[in-house]
Amino acid sequence: MTASSPAPLTEDVLSHADAAQPEALERLFALLRIPSISAQPRHAEDCRAAAQWLRDDLAAIGFDARVADTPGHPMVVAHDVGKSGLPHVLFYGHYDVQPVDPLSLWSSDPFAPAIVTGEDGRQVIVARGASDDKGQLMTFIEACRAWKQVHGDLPLNVSVLIEGEEESGGANLLPFLKAHAAELGAGLALICDTDMPNRTTPAITTALRGLVGEEVVIQCAGRDLHSGMYGNAARNPIELLCTILATIRDETGRVTLPGFYDDVQLPSESQRKQWRALFPDDSVLLGPVGLSEAAGEDGFTAIEQVWCRPSFEINGISGGYEEDGFKTVLPAKAMAKISFRLVPGQDPQRIRAAFRERVAGLLPPDATVTFSAHGASSGFAVPQDGPDLRRALDALGEEWGVPAVATASGGSIPVVAEVQEALGIDSLLIGFAQSDDRIHSPNEQYGVENFRKGVRSWVRVLAALAVPG
Amino acid sequence: MTASSPAPLTEDVLSHADAAQPEALERLFALLRIPSISAQPRHAEDCRAAAQWLRDDLAAIGFDARVADTPGHPMVVAHDVGKSGLPHVLFYGHYDVQPVDPLSLWSSDPFAPAIVTGEDGRQVIVARGASDDKGQLMTFIEACRAWKQVHGDLPLNVSVLIEGEEESGGANLLPFLKAHAAELGAGLALICDTDMPNRTTPAITTALRGLVGEEVVIQCAGRDLHSGMYGNAARNPIELLCTILATIRDETGRVTLPGFYDDVQLPSESQRKQWRALFPDDSVLLGPVGLSEAAGEDGFTAIEQVWCRPSFEINGISGGYEEDGFKTVLPAKAMAKISFRLVPGQDPQRIRAAFRERVAGLLPPDATVTFSAHGASSGFAVPQDGPDLRRALDALGEEWGVPAVATASGGSIPVVAEVQEALGIDSLLIGFAQSDDRIHSPNEQYGVENFRKGVRSWVRVLAALAVPG
Repeated sequence: MTASSPAPLTEDVLSHADAAQPEALERLFALLRIPSISAQPRHAEDCRAAAQWLRDDLAAIGFDARVADTPGHPMVVAHDVGKSGLPHVLFYGHYDVQPVDPLSLWSSDPFAPAIVTGEDGRQVIVARGASDDKGQLMTFIEACRAWKQVHGDLPLNVSVLIEGEEESGGANLLPFLKAHAAELGAGLALICDTDMPNRTTPAITTALRGLVGEEVVIQCAGRDLHSGMYGNAARNPIELLCTILATIRDETGRVTLPGFYDDVQLPSESQRKQWRALFPDDSVLLGPVGLSEAAGEDGFTAIEQVWCRPSFEINGISGGYEEDGFKTVLPAKAMAKISFRLVPGQDPQRIRAAFRERVAGLLPPDATVTFSAHGASSGFAVPQDGPDLRRALDALGEEWGVPAVATASGGSIPVVAEVQEALGIDSLLIGFAQSDDRIHSPNEQYGVENFRKGVRSWVRVLAALAVPG
Repeated sequence: MTASSPAPLTEDVLSHADAAQPEALERLFALLRIPSISAQPRHAEDCRAAAQWLRDDLAAIGFDARVADTPGHPMVVAHDVGKSGLPHVLFYGHYDVQPVDPLSLWSSDPFAPAIVTGEDGRQVIVARGASDDKGQLMTFIEACRAWKQVHGDLPLNVSVLIEGEEESGGANLLPFLKAHAAELGAGLALICDTDMPNRTTPAITTALRGLVGEEVVIQCAGRDLHSGMYGNAARNPIELLCTILATIRDETGRVTLPGFYDDVQLPSESQRKQWRALFPDDSVLLGPVGLSEAAGEDGFTAIEQVWCRPSFEINGISGGYEEDGFKTVLPAKAMAKISFRLVPGQDPQRIRAAFRERVAGLLPPDATVTFSAHGASSGFAVPQDGPDLRRALDALGEEWGVPAVATASGGSIPVVAEVQEALGIDSLLIGFAQSDDRIHSPNEQYGVENFRKGVRSWVRVLAALAVPG
């Protein structure tokens, strides 16, 4: 409970939110019916329609809301601010969705949302965007609505930014944030685009891995050769590439690039203990994808390897004859796409340079290499001792009846770094999706109960963060 | 000089062949005009036309010639035999040619042969098949014609077999040889489908490498994964494949499979010395393809590595995302196509088993491998002390004015093994092509002088082999 929102106030809002659940689902369904696929130009008007729908809904709640144009799909910007002495939070979500192909794998129209009973008896909403991100962002908007309808006001200052290009590059977000830094200048960002570690444990994602992507092309001979005429004497670039890439990790799974682990911090023992409780065995993470034991660094559990350890991956490799049958070609070139997932403290440019130095240093005469950079981002971490993190974790724990956990994600969520860069603020990543929600895949779903408790969670988090400054 | 063909007899034939060169070129051009592309069904009638043309030409010389049907394109079979007490040789060539695409890279119609002056002032015949194999096989037929026209007979018994599927699999050759073993049962096969080590040195290819081809697919997870969500903890099959393939050779370039070099014989020091004279520096072989030094086994020259040492090649590799841009996929599978070129003495099945054992032995838990065999053939070598080899080398030396060399080829020529299997006889591979004849490529060519001296070479070789038994 916070000073500004004593328990009875919040309880009233929670009761109201539960009672209003049927109408909340209707609103979500209306939004899900709009096929706002940002990557497909023929859906540009649908993207605008989704933005307009959200603007209208936020305005109906009482936000000062508008659709703001960008060089791409528009943003929705809304404010309910002006309460002096209270914190100001910026909520971020995205109304755009992934393409739906292959359509044949959907059991129903991706833009005709329906509630169905899942294999385990759970009620789930099936539609493209049900989880990513329309269902999730509407948990926040419904929480705001409940506060406004019960008490006529929010417990703190709230701005909302909903973009329409998260699934298609998001190139316009950072410039928009920079151009509107004064208007969007809150003290904390709240993002609802992540999942829970299991069905029952609420979580805040407090660390994300960054990424260095790199494409390597090794060339030896000037043209493809016949392996009979040259095999042995002419350098085989595929073999060379394999030999070089095989040096990047040692037999314990550690990356061998000099300085790679400099400045890598381990989570606290208490945090690792919480993670071990969530993932008591590596098979919890790996079993669903057909694996039984962690492959990477010795001495770390599977979830630690993903959440707090940097990795090396070969994401693609190509060379010579790849079709059916056989061809005795000794190719001129071989290509690999590789990436390093980085944890906070690692410098992407330094890691890229160390990788390039390794490859170049192992090149024999007659071999040349071409590197192409494919992105670089640092890892991100919310300070574990921040008071807002503590307040939000406590609020989530109250709602779900079990302590909320500060988790991490092995992937990148660009908006976190962009908000940091443009506005200078941290983000709390609070989401209610499940790992089997099939985001980006056919039959995407979102649990009805996840939606309901998501709304209730935000009701409590808003109250918890409303600490007079 | 042989007992049956004293010098004056041969000299008369040589003079006649030179004088008849214009007509010989006209005949070659007529054959080159037939687009007998065996791989393209629309050219089936052209293949038959080429066979018919050759049958008619051989009949005109005096051979007992016929077109013999097969399940594919027909064979040409011809005999000029019956001289008791004299050896019987079987000549092999192929009338089919490679496809001509990309047509735009040809400077003239591939089936409108023309004599043009090359960059180095050489006169060359430009056409598809000019070298491979119409020009080469006609050197033998013209030599026979000259013998018949001057002396009314050949100096020994000659059968001719010309196939039409060498460029498209040649599946019907072995069954045909077996079905006609009695009719084709000569004591020695002569094959004109190889090249000279340089412009001036005649050669007989006395060793060929065999091949073991293998496709390896390694699977880890049950489906493609997101590298952010699983990278580190889930085994990366591309990395595993690279790591395993990187163990096949050691840092000296030697293949590390147990027993790989058992039974591998080195050529005699005198033969190696001849080869070193032909290729005094590795750049002679490698320079034209943009390389400067041999990559393979330490302690062997580039040409030795190709001609007499077994090799390991990765002919193709594929996995994950290979298109433009970047995708942070952690793929479920990775594939490689690999091959070993084998020298005489190596057992293809034993080498395949050793490779599979190596891969399987390095597989960690959760990884599975699938192997697919893509062919297996042994290396081949003509005994260096055979009298026919010596006689043919001497005859070639007389024609070219420099000692002929027993060379080797790093590739496979299936007919050699098939003739051995079906008829139980050795082959002498005598050819006059040049490494820059662009066989299988646009603007294929054959030197006019190579054609002329090829005819003269066969005139002499036929005489040299005509030793009464």
